[in-house]
Amino acid sequence: VTEAGFGDRLASLVAERSSQIVLGLDPDPARLWPRALEHAGGGDGGPAERAARAVQEHCRLAIEAAGEHCVAIKPQVACFERLGAPGWAALAATVRSAQDHGLLVIADAKRGDIDVSAQAYAEAFFAGTESPFGRVPGLGVDALTVNPLLGVDSLLPLVAAARERGGGLFVLVRTSNRGAGDVQELELGDGSTVSDRIARIVSELGAAGVGPAGLADIGAVQSMPRTILLLPGVGAQGGRVEDLAAAFAPGPAGGLISVSRGIVYAFEHRGGFPEAAAAREASRLRELAWSIAT
Amino acid sequence: VTEAGFGDRLASLVAERSSQIVLGLDPDPARLWPRALEHAGGGDGGPAERAARAVQEHCRLAIEAAGEHCVAIKPQVACFERLGAPGWAALAATVRSAQDHGLLVIADAKRGDIDVSAQAYAEAFFAGTESPFGRVPGLGVDALTVNPLLGVDSLLPLVAAARERGGGLFVLVRTSNRGAGDVQELELGDGSTVSDRIARIVSELGAAGVGPAGLADIGAVQSMPRTILLLPGVGAQGGRVEDLAAAFAPGPAGGLISVSRGIVYAFEHRGGFPEAAAAREASRLRELAWSIAT
Repeated sequence: VTEAGFGDRLASLVAERSSQIVLGLDPDPARLWPRALEHAGGGDGGPAERAARAVQEHCRLAIEAAGEHCVAIKPQVACFERLGAPGWAALAATVRSAQDHGLLVIADAKRGDIDVSAQAYAEAFFAGTESPFGRVPGLGVDALTVNPLLGVDSLLPLVAAARERGGGLFVLVRTSNRGAGDVQELELGDGSTVSDRIARIVSELGAAGVGPAGLADIGAVQSMPRTILLLPGVGAQGGRVEDLAAAFAPGPAGGLISVSRGIVYAFEHRGGFPEAAAAREASRLRELAWSIAT
Repeated sequence: VTEAGFGDRLASLVAERSSQIVLGLDPDPARLWPRALEHAGGGDGGPAERAARAVQEHCRLAIEAAGEHCVAIKPQVACFERLGAPGWAALAATVRSAQDHGLLVIADAKRGDIDVSAQAYAEAFFAGTESPFGRVPGLGVDALTVNPLLGVDSLLPLVAAARERGGGLFVLVRTSNRGAGDVQELELGDGSTVSDRIARIVSELGAAGVGPAGLADIGAVQSMPRTILLLPGVGAQGGRVEDLAAAFAPGPAGGLISVSRGIVYAFEHRGGFPEAAAAREASRLRELAWSIAT
């Protein structure tokens, strides 16, 4: 049983590592690091098994290279799921690898469902499942991204499962894609937006999970008091670390900065081996963010 | 390459089988049919492998028993995902088993993500993925439930991948859970609701996918012209087939009726072996729905 809540665990780790950087892992089988491909090339199995082995090795190498400059990884679950059962095994191995390096794991799965199905997702990512053959462990991640369209009751089983083990959720509040306005930014009768209403839900859900560090265990993608902000899209998607100062208002752990391709493919722009370029870029971003946040 | 679109494929199958019944498969390892447990009891592997084998057999038996009265299965992906990699393998086997019985497969995954991640989900469920080791096949389902909170651009890769293979999507428009009002039923400035706006998006996305049968390949959970309606919750969740007449306005394939526990656990209320009770209940519901629809 973990006694500290997610907000406190994150705040401690951010302080200890002087970092808000989250290593995003969106492995594309067509763009893996050369050493990962070599590793998978000689083994048994069909395309799915070999591609999943290469993806797993790619993620392990990226964690080994850049992990010391980061506080967490954020694996994009879709990228593993497309490799079927071997892909899911590679995801589980990547979770373990990150945790072995002292990193938190934020599974970017954007799940959302009702009732017993929400409970099943909670079991998949956090708690595990009882079966007549013994307990089946969950992925054991520290946090999960979730979709709130189905309402508060759809989130409650996930909140409970995360909180039970000192984990957290990141709720989609306002995303940065072109189509975000189609639903999230619709204006309500009182002049507020759908995202404003979701932000309020996040705040209410997180209120019971605020620890001594002053941060709730239910985070969001929009700047809110006490709420940890997960900021995707720095690097390849054009976001700039310098623009993020407002996010750190609640403290240095109030904003997490997720960088995927900007670190993993740094060698394409900056030269050198992938491992060394990733480490350098993660270190550079860490220092830059830290100088803004403190 | 499949030439007919999803609406036409579904309309043909509904007419051929005189059925709108979708067999929902939400396997709970603690409530599997006895024959499935026996099957998995003697084999190798840890709890995850054995539980997944039992789940796979449970689904196979349910399809064998009730499938002839149905047009599709709707596996709840969360229930497989909680068993890890072996669970994902059981899902793939369940998809094949249904398709071998001439049934369509509607993966109930409620996925939604942006950009390359939406594309990765499209690859996972429909198209498959290119890798340096050869093509990794997708699950090959016929349709997928999706979450529209991230907007139209987040749905486009899934629409394209589905349409390419004569598949479809079911977009969450208005769900039946208690918390549906928290976001979906928020009232906009013009007096309409978030769900109304999503319904319009569904209609627009489906317009290019309407075939000779007059049904679009992008479905919804709310009654709309030309739009196939996926109606969950009959049986265990208290819905009644008799209340659904309006759904069939666009034709007998305009409404699909998903029944999970009502069929799979019919033996608990109606007695007899699980297989026989499931077949009887599926047959009864088929006749009842058909009499309302035609």
